[in-house]
Amino acid sequence: MQFQLTTDFIKQVEQLIIVKDGNALRQLLHDIHFADIAELLEELKSDEATYLIKLLESELTSEALSELDDDVREKILNRLSPKEIAEELQELDTDDAADIVAELDEEIQQEVIGKIEDNELAADIVELLKYDEDTAGALMAKELVQVKETWTVAGCVREMRRQAENVTRVHSIYVTDTEGKLKGRLSLKDLLTASGKTHISEVYIPKVDYVTVHTENEEVARIMQKYDLEAIPVVNENGVLMGRITIDDIVDFIKEEAEKDYQLAAGISQDVEADDNIWQLTRARLPWLVLGLFGGLGSVYIMQGFEDALNHYPILFFFTPLIAAMAGNVGVQSSAIIVQGLANDNVKGSLLKRLIKEVGLALINGLALGLLVMLFGFIVGQNQLISIAIAVSMLSVIIVAALVGTFVPIILDKKGIDPAIATGPFITTSNDIFGIFLFFYISRIILGGF
Amino acid sequence: MQFQLTTDFIKQVEQLIIVKDGNALRQLLHDIHFADIAELLEELKSDEATYLIKLLESELTSEALSELDDDVREKILNRLSPKEIAEELQELDTDDAADIVAELDEEIQQEVIGKIEDNELAADIVELLKYDEDTAGALMAKELVQVKETWTVAGCVREMRRQAENVTRVHSIYVTDTEGKLKGRLSLKDLLTASGKTHISEVYIPKVDYVTVHTENEEVARIMQKYDLEAIPVVNENGVLMGRITIDDIVDFIKEEAEKDYQLAAGISQDVEADDNIWQLTRARLPWLVLGLFGGLGSVYIMQGFEDALNHYPILFFFTPLIAAMAGNVGVQSSAIIVQGLANDNVKGSLLKRLIKEVGLALINGLALGLLVMLFGFIVGQNQLISIAIAVSMLSVIIVAALVGTFVPIILDKKGIDPAIATGPFITTSNDIFGIFLFFYISRIILGGF
Repeated sequence: MQFQLTTDFIKQVEQLIIVKDGNALRQLLHDIHFADIAELLEELKSDEATYLIKLLESELTSEALSELDDDVREKILNRLSPKEIAEELQELDTDDAADIVAELDEEIQQEVIGKIEDNELAADIVELLKYDEDTAGALMAKELVQVKETWTVAGCVREMRRQAENVTRVHSIYVTDTEGKLKGRLSLKDLLTASGKTHISEVYIPKVDYVTVHTENEEVARIMQKYDLEAIPVVNENGVLMGRITIDDIVDFIKEEAEKDYQLAAGISQDVEADDNIWQLTRARLPWLVLGLFGGLGSVYIMQGFEDALNHYPILFFFTPLIAAMAGNVGVQSSAIIVQGLANDNVKGSLLKRLIKEVGLALINGLALGLLVMLFGFIVGQNQLISIAIAVSMLSVIIVAALVGTFVPIILDKKGIDPAIATGPFITTSNDIFGIFLFFYISRIILGGF
Repeated sequence: MQFQLTTDFIKQVEQLIIVKDGNALRQLLHDIHFADIAELLEELKSDEATYLIKLLESELTSEALSELDDDVREKILNRLSPKEIAEELQELDTDDAADIVAELDEEIQQEVIGKIEDNELAADIVELLKYDEDTAGALMAKELVQVKETWTVAGCVREMRRQAENVTRVHSIYVTDTEGKLKGRLSLKDLLTASGKTHISEVYIPKVDYVTVHTENEEVARIMQKYDLEAIPVVNENGVLMGRITIDDIVDFIKEEAEKDYQLAAGISQDVEADDNIWQLTRARLPWLVLGLFGGLGSVYIMQGFEDALNHYPILFFFTPLIAAMAGNVGVQSSAIIVQGLANDNVKGSLLKRLIKEVGLALINGLALGLLVMLFGFIVGQNQLISIAIAVSMLSVIIVAALVGTFVPIILDKKGIDPAIATGPFITTSNDIFGIFLFFYISRIILGGF
C-alpha cells in the first residue's frame, strides 16, 4: 500500500523533466504524499528539483520542501525568487514557514517576508524568528484552536469550525480568559458530550501542562514524552497563550538528538550522512582523528620514557594495544551509561556511592580479565611474574578508565557542557595515554630493573 | 508548574508508609500525574511501592505501573495476587494491559486473565498476546472509534459518543464496511463541519495509511514518522480492522531503539541503566571486554611474529597504540555513518561507488594524518625512512579500517543481522588486529632487515 520510490520511477520523472512535459508530471505526481515527493526531490539534481517545485501546486510542494534535508533545500531555495519562496510559505504552518525563513540570508529574509500576501502569516513568522533556536518559542506553531472561558459550548463549536480551517490537526482546544491568558483545555471528546448551552467555564479542565516560549527544546521533549502529550500549549512570561507544539516536531527532535549523540560517540562532528560528499565527511571526521593521533603520539612519548624496559621485558610492549583497548572500551562503556543516565535524568544519589559502585564494577571486570591474562600467560609459558605484572597493571588501568569515563561526563554536565562529547574519541584518547603510562609504571614497580 | 520529585517528598511518603497513614498518603498523592507516581515508585523499596499500589485507586496506579521500568514492575507484580493484578489491568488500555500480562510467568498469566471481570478486555488481551513481540499486532491497542460507511453523520456522532467512553484519545474515526474491512477514515474536524443527514460514505477519506498485524515495529515507526501520523490503523490479512497504534508508543519505541544502538556502539549489551546493580552492569559489560581482551591477545601474538624488529626498529613498537587507535577510530566512524544510513534507509547507489568514496575519504584523512606523523618525526629528529614507513603503513591501515567499517555493517544488514552490533567493540577489536599486522608487514617491506 505504501508508495515505493523506485529507480525506474526516478528515471521516468527525469525523462519527463528533460522533455518539459509538465502535464504528464503533474498527473504522475498528483496523488503522491508530500513526504514521498520530498524523497523524490532528494534524488534529483537541484535544477530538476527546482523545476518540479515551480511546476507543481504549492500546496503539494511546500510540505515536501519543508521535509527536505537542509542542504538540499538550500540549493533549491537559491534558485527560487523571493516571490516564489513566499508562495510556498503561504501553504505552510507558521512553524515550518519560520524554519525555512530562518535558513535564508538576512537580506533575502526581509524580501521574502515582504512578498507574503497573508499579513497575519508574515507577522507570525517575524514573531517566531525572534525566539532562540533551541527554545519552545522557535519550535511552536501559531495555529491552534482557542476559546474564551465566557463562551457557551454552542458558540465554541461555531468558532472552532472557523478556526479549524487553518489548523491541520485539532488536538485540544485551549481555553483562555478575555486577556488571552491560558486557563485550561477542553478535549474534543468533552465537547461532543456537553450540551450546547453550557458555559465553557463549567466544563473545561483547568489542569493543563504548558511550557513557556523560553523553555528549552530538550525540556519540552522530556515533558511531552513523560506525560504522553500529543500537543502542548506555549505561553509567554505573562501566561498569555502564544502557540502550541505538536508531537511530530518532538519526534523529529528526539531522533535528531539521538543521532547527534550517536555520531559524537563515534567521533563524527554533527549532522553528516552516508550520502554527503567527501569534503563534508572529511570535515566531520578528520578533527577527531587528529585528536586520536595526538593521543597516539603522546603514548609514543610515554613509552620512550620507559625505553629501558625494551632490554629486559620487551614482551610488555606487545601488550600496549591490549591495554589501550581495555582502557578505551571500559571508558566508553562507563561514559555511555552515564551520558544516557544524565539524558534520562536518572543519575541520582551521591557521588561517593557512584564512585564506590564504579570501583566495585571495575574490580569485578578487572579481576575476571586479569585471570584470563594469567591463564593466557600460563598456556604460552610466559614468566609468571610478568603475567602478574600485566594482570595487576591492567586491573589498575581498568579502574582508572572507569572512573575517568564516569566522572568526566558528570563534571562536564555540571559545567553546562553537553556530556555526550565525552563519549568516544575524547575518552578513548585520554584513557589510552593514562592507561599506557599506568601500565608501565605499575609493571616497573612489580618487575623492577628498568 | 511541573511537579518535582524531591528527596524531601520521597522521605515524607516513606514516613507515611511506615506509620501506615493511608488517608494522608491518598490525600498527598491524589492530584499527582501517574507518570510522577511512577517516578516515585521507582525510588521506593518494592514493599513500599507495593503498599502504595494496593492503597491507591487502580485508576491512578495502573497507569503508573504501566510506565515503570520492567524490573521494578516485576518486583511489585510478584507481591500482588492475580486478582489484584487483574484489577489494575481493568483500568488500562488493551495494549498496556497485554504488555504487562506478557511479562508474567505463563501459569500466572492464565490465572490473571481468569480474574479479569471485563470479558471483552480478557479476550482482547488473549488476542494481543498471540502476536509476535516485534510486530504491529503486539504494539496495537484494541480501543478505537469505528463507524460503518452506511451510517449517517448524526448516527455516527451518537455511536462515537458511546465508543469514545473507552478511548482515551480520539485521533481519527475509522470507516469500515459491514464486514469490518477498513475503507478509510474520517477526521473529527470533517465530522464537525458535515450535516447530520449526510452518509459517511459520502464524506470519508478513502485514502488511509495502515499497517498489518505482522508489520514490524521498525517499519511502523518509519511510516508514522515519515508521514507525520499520530495514529495508524492495523488490519489483519483480510483487511479487517483489528486495532490502532498511537504515536506515544512509537515515541517510546524510537527512544528505546536509539538507546539500544548507542549502547551497542559503546559495547554494552542491551538495556542497562546507570542505577542498575553491579551484577546487571557486569553481565552487560564483561562479554564485550573479554572480546576486546582476545583481540589484544591476538595483537600480542602478531607482534611476536615480528619480534626481530625489536633489534633494529624498536621505535615501531611505541607506535602500536597509535595505529590501533587510528584503526579503531576510523572503523567506528565509518560504521556509525553506515549504520545510521541503513536505519534511515539512505544508503543507496552501487557498492562500487561507495567503495571508491570510502577509499577516497580514507586517502584524504590518511594523507593528512601521515603528514602530521612525518612532521612529528622531523621535529623529534627521527630517522626519515622510519617516519615514511610509519606514515605509509598508517595510511594503509586507515584505508583497510574504513573498508571494514563500511562493508561489515552492509554485509550484516544484507544477511538480516542488526548492523548496529558492528559498531563499537566488534569493529574496534578486529581493526586493532588487522591494523597492527598491516603496520608491521608494510613497515618490514619499506625498512627491511626483520
